[in-house]
Amino acid sequence: MSRTLIRGGTVVSTTGAQLLDVLVDGERIAALLDPGALGADLAAGVGTVIDATGRYVVPGGVDGHTHMQMPFGGTEASDTFETGTRAAAWGGTTTIVDFAVQSAGERLQDTMAEWHRKADGRCAIDYGFHQIMGSVDAESLKGMSELVAEGVTSFKLFMAYPGVFYSTDGQILRAMQSAAELGALVMMHAENGIAIDVLVEQALARGDTAPYFHGVTRPWQLEEEATHRAIMLAEVTGAPLYVVHVSAAQALAQIAEARGRGRNVFGETCPQYLYLSLEEHLGAPGFDGAKWVCSTPLRARAEGHQDALWRYLRTGDVTAVSTDHCPFCMKDQKDRGRGDFSKIPNGIGGVEHRMDLMFQGVVNGLISPQRWVEVCCTAPARMFGLYPRKGVISPGADADIVIYDPKGHTSIGIGRTHHMNMDYSAYEGFEVDGHVDTVLARGRVIVDDGRYLGRAGDGRFLKRELSQNLL
Amino acid sequence: MSRTLIRGGTVVSTTGAQLLDVLVDGERIAALLDPGALGADLAAGVGTVIDATGRYVVPGGVDGHTHMQMPFGGTEASDTFETGTRAAAWGGTTTIVDFAVQSAGERLQDTMAEWHRKADGRCAIDYGFHQIMGSVDAESLKGMSELVAEGVTSFKLFMAYPGVFYSTDGQILRAMQSAAELGALVMMHAENGIAIDVLVEQALARGDTAPYFHGVTRPWQLEEEATHRAIMLAEVTGAPLYVVHVSAAQALAQIAEARGRGRNVFGETCPQYLYLSLEEHLGAPGFDGAKWVCSTPLRARAEGHQDALWRYLRTGDVTAVSTDHCPFCMKDQKDRGRGDFSKIPNGIGGVEHRMDLMFQGVVNGLISPQRWVEVCCTAPARMFGLYPRKGVISPGADADIVIYDPKGHTSIGIGRTHHMNMDYSAYEGFEVDGHVDTVLARGRVIVDDGRYLGRAGDGRFLKRELSQNLL
Amino acid sequence: MSRTLIRGGTVVSTTGAQLLDVLVDGERIAALLDPGALGADLAAGVGTVIDATGRYVVPGGVDGHTHMQMPFGGTEASDTFETGTRAAAWGGTTTIVDFAVQSAGERLQDTMAEWHRKADGRCAIDYGFHQIMGSVDAESLKGMSELVAEGVTSFKLFMAYPGVFYSTDGQILRAMQSAAELGALVMMHAENGIAIDVLVEQALARGDTAPYFHGVTRPWQLEEEATHRAIMLAEVTGAPLYVVHVSAAQALAQIAEARGRGRNVFGETCPQYLYLSLEEHLGAPGFDGAKWVCSTPLRARAEGHQDALWRYLRTGDVTAVSTDHCPFCMKDQKDRGRGDFSKIPNGIGGVEHRMDLMFQGVVNGLISPQRWVEVCCTAPARMFGLYPRKGVISPGADADIVIYDPKGHTSIGIGRTHHMNMDYSAYEGFEVDGHVDTVLARGRVIVDDGRYLGRAGDGRFLKRELSQNLL
Amino acid sequence: MSRTLIRGGTVVSTTGAQLLDVLVDGERIAALLDPGALGADLAAGVGTVIDATGRYVVPGGVDGHTHMQMPFGGTEASDTFETGTRAAAWGGTTTIVDFAVQSAGERLQDTMAEWHRKADGRCAIDYGFHQIMGSVDAESLKGMSELVAEGVTSFKLFMAYPGVFYSTDGQILRAMQSAAELGALVMMHAENGIAIDVLVEQALARGDTAPYFHGVTRPWQLEEEATHRAIMLAEVTGAPLYVVHVSAAQALAQIAEARGRGRNVFGETCPQYLYLSLEEHLGAPGFDGAKWVCSTPLRARAEGHQDALWRYLRTGDVTAVSTDHCPFCMKDQKDRGRGDFSKIPNGIGGVEHRMDLMFQGVVNGLISPQRWVEVCCTAPARMFGLYPRKGVISPGADADIVIYDPKGHTSIGIGRTHHMNMDYSAYEGFEVDGHVDTVLARGRVIVDDGRYLGRAGDGRFLKRELSQNLL
Repeated sequence: MSRTLIRGGTVVSTTGAQLLDVLVDGERIAALLDPGALGADLAAGVGTVIDATGRYVVPGGVDGHTHMQMPFGGTEASDTFETGTRAAAWGGTTTIVDFAVQSAGERLQDTMAEWHRKADGRCAIDYGFHQIMGSVDAESLKGMSELVAEGVTSFKLFMAYPGVFYSTDGQILRAMQSAAELGALVMMHAENGIAIDVLVEQALARGDTAPYFHGVTRPWQLEEEATHRAIMLAEVTGAPLYVVHVSAAQALAQIAEARGRGRNVFGETCPQYLYLSLEEHLGAPGFDGAKWVCSTPLRARAEGHQDALWRYLRTGDVTAVSTDHCPFCMKDQKDRGRGDFSKIPNGIGGVEHRMDLMFQGVVNGLISPQRWVEVCCTAPARMFGLYPRKGVISPGADADIVIYDPKGHTSIGIGRTHHMNMDYSAYEGFEVDGHVDTVLARGRVIVDDGRYLGRAGDGRFLKRELSQNLL
Repeated sequence: MSRTLIRGGTVVSTTGAQLLDVLVDGERIAALLDPGALGADLAAGVGTVIDATGRYVVPGGVDGHTHMQMPFGGTEASDTFETGTRAAAWGGTTTIVDFAVQSAGERLQDTMAEWHRKADGRCAIDYGFHQIMGSVDAESLKGMSELVAEGVTSFKLFMAYPGVFYSTDGQILRAMQSAAELGALVMMHAENGIAIDVLVEQALARGDTAPYFHGVTRPWQLEEEATHRAIMLAEVTGAPLYVVHVSAAQALAQIAEARGRGRNVFGETCPQYLYLSLEEHLGAPGFDGAKWVCSTPLRARAEGHQDALWRYLRTGDVTAVSTDHCPFCMKDQKDRGRGDFSKIPNGIGGVEHRMDLMFQGVVNGLISPQRWVEVCCTAPARMFGLYPRKGVISPGADADIVIYDPKGHTSIGIGRTHHMNMDYSAYEGFEVDGHVDTVLARGRVIVDDGRYLGRAGDGRFLKRELSQNLL
Repeated sequence: MSRTLIRGGTVVSTTGAQLLDVLVDGERIAALLDPGALGADLAAGVGTVIDATGRYVVPGGVDGHTHMQMPFGGTEASDTFETGTRAAAWGGTTTIVDFAVQSAGERLQDTMAEWHRKADGRCAIDYGFHQIMGSVDAESLKGMSELVAEGVTSFKLFMAYPGVFYSTDGQILRAMQSAAELGALVMMHAENGIAIDVLVEQALARGDTAPYFHGVTRPWQLEEEATHRAIMLAEVTGAPLYVVHVSAAQALAQIAEARGRGRNVFGETCPQYLYLSLEEHLGAPGFDGAKWVCSTPLRARAEGHQDALWRYLRTGDVTAVSTDHCPFCMKDQKDRGRGDFSKIPNGIGGVEHRMDLMFQGVVNGLISPQRWVEVCCTAPARMFGLYPRKGVISPGADADIVIYDPKGHTSIGIGRTHHMNMDYSAYEGFEVDGHVDTVLARGRVIVDDGRYLGRAGDGRFLKRELSQNLL
Repeated sequence: MSRTLIRGGTVVSTTGAQLLDVLVDGERIAALLDPGALGADLAAGVGTVIDATGRYVVPGGVDGHTHMQMPFGGTEASDTFETGTRAAAWGGTTTIVDFAVQSAGERLQDTMAEWHRKADGRCAIDYGFHQIMGSVDAESLKGMSELVAEGVTSFKLFMAYPGVFYSTDGQILRAMQSAAELGALVMMHAENGIAIDVLVEQALARGDTAPYFHGVTRPWQLEEEATHRAIMLAEVTGAPLYVVHVSAAQALAQIAEARGRGRNVFGETCPQYLYLSLEEHLGAPGFDGAKWVCSTPLRARAEGHQDALWRYLRTGDVTAVSTDHCPFCMKDQKDRGRGDFSKIPNGIGGVEHRMDLMFQGVVNGLISPQRWVEVCCTAPARMFGLYPRKGVISPGADADIVIYDPKGHTSIGIGRTHHMNMDYSAYEGFEVDGHVDTVLARGRVIVDDGRYLGRAGDGRFLKRELSQNLL
């Protein structure tokens, strides 16, 4: 493969922005160059020159939390690995880490094999796996070390969804002990599902069946509580802890407090919690709120969660922004919960829009360009053991590169920018500043100027290291 | 000037470490290269090849807080810009930001001119200036904008030393208002000097005249108090605040709290507070404690400050490590305070040892190599508007580079490693892991294998930008 | 003097309410009786029987913070000891602790003698004195012990009003050291007056001269800051600290934090901060806001201070409620500040309304009846060394008793309930639940059923013990 | 019954101490008298005069947490209601609130009837009941309101002891909802029993079977965690929460934080946590540590819990001190756990020593006499709806009175002061200041000068009101 030179752009790293040329050689970045310094020397070998003048050159996005074709409540998430990763690519995300799901009674290794089958040869971009532990027992605990050896170095547990994914505190303790020994990361869905199920049952019994009550029955106190509990169990065991999809300001306060004590505790949030709300979205008229049923739920704007999340993004107490991409169509899927919100499949699709929605935070003055790159690219790569292969514009790294136009514009919605396999957009009508102009994945241009140039199977499985983001 | 290739080393950045080659062209870094990728292409132009195999390649250190030949209490700091910067170079520091001192009645511009005269043509490494505001009044407030235009973008105020550098809260408020308008940084010596002076007077009246009582009369409460006061004044005015030489855990707790609220508040600490203590050093027999008289003072190890400082270094609530290099000899200088600790010139020299002492924190497992580079190089460069020219190994940056041997060893003390103009070492007898093998300053090797190859005047004045480290 | 039996009422203490009869013998309470238990035994000796059926029998109020005829800015507070204490009596307050004011150059003892002259023979109710220290120096520090011996056991310092009452941190430190030695209490006006004066000067220079800007130039940050500073100085010295007239939620948070660490730190608030606001009162049209110019200032309702103050009243982090009664008439007094808010005499009159306004908190469900009695009577009595003589319905205590009708009603305002020497009411138009029916002072009925039965000179000076409210 | 006059003593209340005479008429206090004031009037009717000169007259102690003959792990607590309440009386405690225990499958009402049978006619002092809810289900939830009507107004739940008393978070939520509706109090054993059981199983598997490992397997983190969880569930439901036997400083920090936010959250501690430790007692040689196996466990002195508990006692964040009296003999009871600490019956006996042990805190300067009376008498009476009948020296109250000699001395241990049915003393060899001289229970002297004058059946069941200690 010949060489490509991206010239004239502004490379953004976690510490600053510089006018630099980027030389790609095959699948990897070969050099970062002071513009003009070496022009003559390199001219010979360069096949393609991409002019990035006036634009940002940033690492391809790393979305550490997606659920392609995930089974949930008798249906499965509507994006396959093929459609979902292609949509990701459109949006400037070149790596996902998806979740293999262990159901009760299954061996972890069988689960993992199944997920490899689902993804293999279908992905537009590189992908890794986390393992959801649906049943923590002697066998699955042993299975953890095998998975780590195979590059699956993070394990997700649930304090919610009793009877489905729920682990008891005893199971969590044991899994954390194993993770601590292996140096692996524990990811936690932190909501007190046992208490929530009581509130849900009571709400339904009262006739409060609309989507809005999905939010009401999952109050912030039960997210804060579970977050704190997970932190203390991590403290007992020494396991590093990554709390997924945090939406409550108070849960982040718990995470910030633990971090201030020097603990390896990390928080993730998602664009939906930064932009959407209980009142406006879950509370939309009729059954429309079903579009935004996800867990943790959208929070009340009036309670100030959004402002707090942006502030925690600035302070670094939110480590990474993922999408928790888990799309369901309204028709035949979300529909199942008409008359009973508890039957609405939980999930929002957004893998395509993360880079743009977060860049809007830069435009709005809420975060810096550096922090945008950090939370969307570098930090998740480090968090999940992919650095420096992913998440950074650096020689030796995979040439996953986005040329981003900060003066561009993106219209989100069906018929506008929407490549996910969903019959609605959670961000319908959003008009945001910035635009993904060109996307390179391992050196190949897969998106350019509104055309998709890649194909299923471009993406390869990533064996991940242990987290590189621990204190 | 011909090209230099540093090959085979491990480049450490704030986010990780990679095997990379570094190509220097003239005074700047021309390229970062995936090893071997471009060998042939570049071979032609390279004059010198430095083999860094097995060693770290890190940015030259940036010491944001030094006082070369600073006037203090009728004497002046014993290192000239020549001797002090040369010692810095020996220790892998290639940039200092020193303090021009305005005395009462002087115009800021005259002060600055004088400091330029002192430094010009004498420095071994590049240097910038902060401005100490000794008298905040209408004229000096106006002078601030001129200095900013000239690349002096930070202003230091004192809540200690009444009658010398002390500013009232009203003066601080006004200076902060001006700084906020200019986007300039306020640096603060945060101790309640008014209260301290009463304690000092009482101690001397009691006959408590030994160096130890320097520490006793500056209790942590009066550092914590002043730190909090500075934070609230900054909050009223909107000025970014950088609290210098923090030694009390409780003062850092105040800084951490403000940072958690999303404020532009930053803390600096120094190696002396991480390694030395009230009991062992200030409390040394006889008059020996005078060696370690500095303000803020060394703190009681028994109170846990050191552990807290290292923890805050890990969490990021300490932004940067400087030396507050302000050396005085025992003979004729520290001596002045025999029988009256308040007459001992305040200051410790250490500009030479910062990189080594902090690397020991890496060896001891207290901070990561990335964090070492961050607090010693990148963060101070960003904090003081020198990035990406300084503080980072990146094309376009000045080729200030240290080749550091993590397996090396350094013996600190008179007759061992000691190039500062002091008749004692504050770290006498310290044996630390790691060694500064080679130092490049703007592309020229100035230290190599125990030889000093530079000369006075190598270093140039740095016009600094506004801080690049604000939220 | 014959005996009086108050029968049928509900005696409220800090721990609960009980149906009890109260037997008064001469100036003191002779017995508390289980109703009916001793009827026959005592019938003989009782001269008067007061039927309190359906009403509360509570201790006479103790207002620990008043300024009768206090000199301020060329005028003096409009209530004399005669008019002010009579108004207090009307409102169910039977003890005040007023402030003797040392001006610069005066001896404390001379000040105190003058205040005795002002009050002697004129008061309707008993009174004690705090000492304001206008100049902390060697002589006044010595004078403190004499005053303590004479029953003046608390000393007030100011961090505000530079050039008038202001003490430097050094003076505060010295006064606190003396207080700590004596066991005496330090009372603090905690606002950073040095910084405030800059903001005031700038506001006036901008033409922001209306009363509203009195509030704007005293932001909560500068109250919080001074409160924290006072706490740390108290921590260095060991002095017990009582912060007067706290209006900022954040200042109380500092007090609460210190109390949680087990420190002898206490907070006082006043009804004006619980009911009135920056927006509605200081911000009243034209010059009307001058009525509510006092320091600390009324705070913005939108910032949530009032809710926080009520919460801290419940939790006990506010120890006592006083009035800071310091009345000035609009005519000839407040008027002086037309066109320059800084010339408006600082102060609000309210000594008459405290018991009613705080009982409204009971009616509104914000505090319990027990807490009402505690913050208005028992706690200030203990705080200022008057317990059990004052502040409690107990045998041996002075028979200062209020018979309070919880079903009654009180209309506040000129021409309604208003006996203070002011030409306006700060609470004009307030209609509150509850009514002071009968007031006994040392056994004599001085207010009954809307008639005033006392006379100037009823009240006597109270020699106070050291605070009985320390940990 | 004739009248008794206790004269010359110092009555201590929660707000202070006064020389007062106390007139008892039958079972109740008839009057509090200013000494001498009414001598003549009352002389006629007084049958007995007790001279309390030089001594404290305090309310009989209220121990809100005892377990007489409680079934546990196949045995039962070794004190019957007869022996246990008699020992309490010896120690100056005149009221206990014991726990009726619902086992799985039992109706609450049947449980309560059984406990009435156990206690009726056997107690030396008055007693009330809390209800332990062993199984929260539809029927027991309904049963709560009946119990409240019968004067059982507090319900205890366990987050520990899975398979025995453990309730899930869903059950806790439901019980709290019912309690909130009824205004009843939820008492919580707050330890994460699910996680603890894993640690216990692992310890036993490792061969760590000695009593010491009882403490090690119940780390403070798991008490802090459960305490926080209980607080958040209480916040969701609005139920008032009383956390029993808190031993970890960090758990109290959680309680203090909730109280600071104005929540009805209360903490109880016990003398064992204030005086005994993991290192010295649980870690005693051989099997001796079994004596001190109780849950929550004794904590490591080195971790500072004891100092923190005393501080929280001073600040009021510990509301009440109980004994959690649950005695087991070494022989045949504690013995069961040789070789397996998890089989040691959990419990320490101490009902006899609470008043003395806490008075030692007064002698040691850690709490005031008022606070001693508050935490041992008044606060538990108010907390559990017994005020003003119990917990206060006031007319109308039951004449439960202790004449306490602050200059006396008490030797604790077998053969010294020990009337509990235990073959060892948890406080063996403690020599403490102060002595219970005389105890009156409802007007009758039951302990006097080392003689026991009461008899089984003196004590009667107390129907309790709702808590009188809520905000």
